[in-house]
Amino acid sequence: MNVSTRFTIALHILTLLASSRGEALTSEYIAGSVNTNPVVVRRLLGLLRKRGIVSSQPGTGGGWQLTRDPESITLLDVRCAVNEGSPFAMHSQPPNPACPVGRNIQASLAGVYRQAEQAMEAELARTTVGKLLRSVESRQRL
Amino acid sequence: MNVSTRFTIALHILTLLASSRGEALTSEYIAGSVNTNPVVVRRLLGLLRKRGIVSSQPGTGGGWQLTRDPESITLLDVRCAVNEGSPFAMHSQPPNPACPVGRNIQASLAGVYRQAEQAMEAELARTTVGKLLRSVESRQRL
Repeated sequence: MNVSTRFTIALHILTLLASSRGEALTSEYIAGSVNTNPVVVRRLLGLLRKRGIVSSQPGTGGGWQLTRDPESITLLDVRCAVNEGSPFAMHSQPPNPACPVGRNIQASLAGVYRQAEQAMEAELARTTVGKLLRSVESRQRL
Repeated sequence: MNVSTRFTIALHILTLLASSRGEALTSEYIAGSVNTNPVVVRRLLGLLRKRGIVSSQPGTGGGWQLTRDPESITLLDVRCAVNEGSPFAMHSQPPNPACPVGRNIQASLAGVYRQAEQAMEAELARTTVGKLLRSVESRQRL
């Protein structure tokens, strides 16, 4: 499972929990909608619980539910919760320090990459799980 | 070599060519600065040549150089040239079409992801190889 699939699956899980309107869902049920293994779902739910976005009740009738209003959970909150990394990667081996460009390129790129990532994050902060659910529901009525 | 490393190495190559001020550089020389294999460098130079960003002259004294003013080459041009993919990935297996959320989530996510990617791209379009070189050169003077 790569980093970006993780973000998509976490958003799927949260949209499903938002659609269940307070009814707790089991990780098996959620995995059936996502079409993946319940282990993958439980791992992501664990990360979301750490951030206080979901909670779980054990036992019969138990399961997972949102702890917050879906309108207050931004996509950036979710991205941070699942430890989504930067969309940019530096050289896998350090560039040549004897070359003036090699010695300085990473520091210059770091600034540029951070700005581009921040622009993306600002956009993700403008959308919420609630908005995503409304989009999904409007498609159901088509 | 993953997608994002490709973008970084392409930017390193172009900054180095911009710093050589019209002098052609061999892929071996460039690879020495990047600290990678010349084959990797030549593959990326081939992609950049397809977009008309660099050209090559064979033979003794030959090599690679920029075809355009570094101030006119945006980081978005480079991202497109090296076929950098989306920073977002959908489910690796299609979600459950029998579930209302599973059936519609990808279409809803696609719109959100596209907007976030466009915000990132707009930021990359604001920076050029020329600006990157000036940033590298200002660090050399520190």
